[in-house]
Amino acid sequence: MAERIDLNCDVGESFGVYHGGNDAELLRHVTSANIACGFHAGDPAMMRKTVRLALEHNVAIGAHPGLPDLVGFGRRNMQVTPREVYEMVLYQMGALHAFVRAEGAKLSHVKPHGALYNMAARDRELATAIAEAVQRFDPSCQLVGLAGSELIHAGDALGITTVGEAFADRAYETDGSLTPRDQPFAVLCDPQEVANRVVSIVREGKVVTRQNTDLLIDARTICIHGDSPHAIHLVQAIREQLQAAKIEVAHFGS
Amino acid sequence: MAERIDLNCDVGESFGVYHGGNDAELLRHVTSANIACGFHAGDPAMMRKTVRLALEHNVAIGAHPGLPDLVGFGRRNMQVTPREVYEMVLYQMGALHAFVRAEGAKLSHVKPHGALYNMAARDRELATAIAEAVQRFDPSCQLVGLAGSELIHAGDALGITTVGEAFADRAYETDGSLTPRDQPFAVLCDPQEVANRVVSIVREGKVVTRQNTDLLIDARTICIHGDSPHAIHLVQAIREQLQAAKIEVAHFGS
Amino acid sequence: MAERIDLNCDVGESFGVYHGGNDAELLRHVTSANIACGFHAGDPAMMRKTVRLALEHNVAIGAHPGLPDLVGFGRRNMQVTPREVYEMVLYQMGALHAFVRAEGAKLSHVKPHGALYNMAARDRELATAIAEAVQRFDPSCQLVGLAGSELIHAGDALGITTVGEAFADRAYETDGSLTPRDQPFAVLCDPQEVANRVVSIVREGKVVTRQNTDLLIDARTICIHGDSPHAIHLVQAIREQLQAAKIEVAHFGS
Amino acid sequence: MAERIDLNCDVGESFGVYHGGNDAELLRHVTSANIACGFHAGDPAMMRKTVRLALEHNVAIGAHPGLPDLVGFGRRNMQVTPREVYEMVLYQMGALHAFVRAEGAKLSHVKPHGALYNMAARDRELATAIAEAVQRFDPSCQLVGLAGSELIHAGDALGITTVGEAFADRAYETDGSLTPRDQPFAVLCDPQEVANRVVSIVREGKVVTRQNTDLLIDARTICIHGDSPHAIHLVQAIREQLQAAKIEVAHFGS
Repeated sequence: MAERIDLNCDVGESFGVYHGGNDAELLRHVTSANIACGFHAGDPAMMRKTVRLALEHNVAIGAHPGLPDLVGFGRRNMQVTPREVYEMVLYQMGALHAFVRAEGAKLSHVKPHGALYNMAARDRELATAIAEAVQRFDPSCQLVGLAGSELIHAGDALGITTVGEAFADRAYETDGSLTPRDQPFAVLCDPQEVANRVVSIVREGKVVTRQNTDLLIDARTICIHGDSPHAIHLVQAIREQLQAAKIEVAHFGS
Repeated sequence: MAERIDLNCDVGESFGVYHGGNDAELLRHVTSANIACGFHAGDPAMMRKTVRLALEHNVAIGAHPGLPDLVGFGRRNMQVTPREVYEMVLYQMGALHAFVRAEGAKLSHVKPHGALYNMAARDRELATAIAEAVQRFDPSCQLVGLAGSELIHAGDALGITTVGEAFADRAYETDGSLTPRDQPFAVLCDPQEVANRVVSIVREGKVVTRQNTDLLIDARTICIHGDSPHAIHLVQAIREQLQAAKIEVAHFGS
Repeated sequence: MAERIDLNCDVGESFGVYHGGNDAELLRHVTSANIACGFHAGDPAMMRKTVRLALEHNVAIGAHPGLPDLVGFGRRNMQVTPREVYEMVLYQMGALHAFVRAEGAKLSHVKPHGALYNMAARDRELATAIAEAVQRFDPSCQLVGLAGSELIHAGDALGITTVGEAFADRAYETDGSLTPRDQPFAVLCDPQEVANRVVSIVREGKVVTRQNTDLLIDARTICIHGDSPHAIHLVQAIREQLQAAKIEVAHFGS
Repeated sequence: MAERIDLNCDVGESFGVYHGGNDAELLRHVTSANIACGFHAGDPAMMRKTVRLALEHNVAIGAHPGLPDLVGFGRRNMQVTPREVYEMVLYQMGALHAFVRAEGAKLSHVKPHGALYNMAARDRELATAIAEAVQRFDPSCQLVGLAGSELIHAGDALGITTVGEAFADRAYETDGSLTPRDQPFAVLCDPQEVANRVVSIVREGKVVTRQNTDLLIDARTICIHGDSPHAIHLVQAIREQLQAAKIEVAHFGS
């Protein structure tokens, strides 16, 4: 069992005059950041600003590509082909990479967003398309996806480094999928309970499902949701609990 | 005087189901290609396809960033700040670079498109913003702009390699600017006349203006317009004339 | 059996500098036009131009709303809610109506485009959302959809006038659905065969399926595809055959 | 001198998941609302919601069309032609009108947004294009613009009803233009001072300029900025002052 864990959050999801998320605060607490690339959220100004903010906080930078659906925030499934997915991921990864490179830094990882993340968790062809985009752009770039999902399998099959992600504040089903948000108890709000789940995931490699069974879960990073009003409380509770358990919080690439 | 010259054209300007330009034919005749990056034209699928097509024809690949104005094809001036220009150029350059890198190739140059090109020719602050984006992303990447313009001056001042561009099929004013398209005789159509102008630009470093004066012009590349119906005839006449004059046609980076 | 039929085609699908379809020619041959509204294709300039063109040819004008997916031409299914569909149809219908009203004319009908059309043919909730948008905007506006589909049923249930559409150049399955385009023989190309099918649909209310069975079909309009290279030949053959059969070609609203 | 005045504010400027403005609170205090139409801000869902909200508060509804520049919030000047302006205003007005009509209400007015508003205040051709769009769509719809500007002149010349607008919280220059926001003292923050200016505008038809001269101003509506953090305090102070001065607050169309 690993005695270290990465905490990641999605940032840079503002757009134009619109403000989304509390990036400056969140980046104090995590070890890797997934920055929106302009398709589901974000714009060139926001990408530049967020890259700089992440570097100031010494947080590893990843691309967070999404479906081309700004008005739907990339949360609506679209019938896209593997080829289209390869192309949209490559485009967005490249765009973010430019801001990272312009600041003299390195792109650490790629984690798809929203509907693209969920579709790639289940659909091996779409998953492979994403993994290929990463591999062809930079084989040393790591691919973050739902632990145990098709995306992780696809990345492994291509020989790139994959990083399984767990959600400490989301209920799990017995098959390893996340309980849909519209179900009761899909989202956990108690900071202490969430923090305990993180320790369990890191130390024992398992999480208790909604059906009260144990689910084995191989995760090297925990997603911190930034859009929740109590996100800061959650991440603080998690960090305290991890410290008490003597589990190191560090980027998965370190 | 140089005894070699580069011929460049704008390609990859299709979008979705829409077809623009005759890329496959044009790429047989030029030595560098400026590929649209999705803001004024182009999309991820088109970028991938065009990068591959350019590589097949052994044509050097440049990014062709434009203003975020798809419906106006990036031809309408916008009141953008230097910061916004830096960011939009960096974004687009990075996006195209990803497709180039995924194919194992190298980004040769950046040439702004349409209104951005014209604004940067006259406005030193916008010009510097573009040059900085290129320099910070890759100082070995070359910056193509109107010969003698502020964009060239800005790139020179920053120490990156600049490439002056001349338009063989466009009339020039005595101040070195292009005669606006809505003026009479702004566009030259006779292939022989256009070809002769190219030889004059390469060999003598000058072109005759609309006012019948000589204009000194320091160009290392000639723009071939692809959207004209007789683009192919023009470029063929130019190549024949250059061959007769024993002027080599080669990429400016070679 | 009706002894008259409407011929409709999708027009105004150009965008910005991009040209799509042969509207001027097509509009000579049809009796109703579905004009793109800017989401999957079309833009304000094109909408104005196409409305005028349709009026010049005395062709009834309908709105042709699509999914917000310009790069995919509205052909990719999206996981949209009935509420979102209601809103996107109302928005686009209103936008087109403004151009029609500015020219002193009347909006005749609404026909959804591409993936929205297909989704609404099968999904009653989405179908009802479209029908409600039409009803609330203008109950005298007619709703065009696949003959026998959920969209037609939804419109009928709401009490608005519906118009069943048939595709003379597409193969049908026994369940009344269109044979997917990626199947063999999905598209019929022989003008004579297509024209004969139109007469059969009008006169006998039936069409022969791919499985060689008779399919009852209650259609008051036939779709003429404009994006096919031989669209003009098809529509000419259809009109000749209809004239020979003494079937009147007239708008369904006349 | 009028003893009544309209208070208007810009609303519906959220987009997708992004929240902008405090519409629900603002609509309690104003008599007309300008609703964004999707080009600079707003989307179909927001338009529907905001139309309903305005109707609940018995506030007159106007269209608030802007330049097609979502990332720039329609605040960046664009080199658009009168024809393009006519088309983009007509499109947006129609889109909003559909939501108003679907709720059984009437579109009261049109007020251009941001850069389009400012450009139309100075450029008579663009102003005329906007006025023509309003006139051709619905001659009974009123046109709101900067008091004394070219937009008002253009509407008057076409014979539609125009409504001059004044800004109580913005400094004026002697020529009647607004002091640019980047100048010192361009924005007034003291609620009492702003309220006094409103009374002066209504009762005396004049405002004191930054140069301390009197400027005659013929305004029938006062703009309440919703994006300011103390917008609510401002509008409350204005309403109290108006009540004390026995000036009625009512929609200009009533």
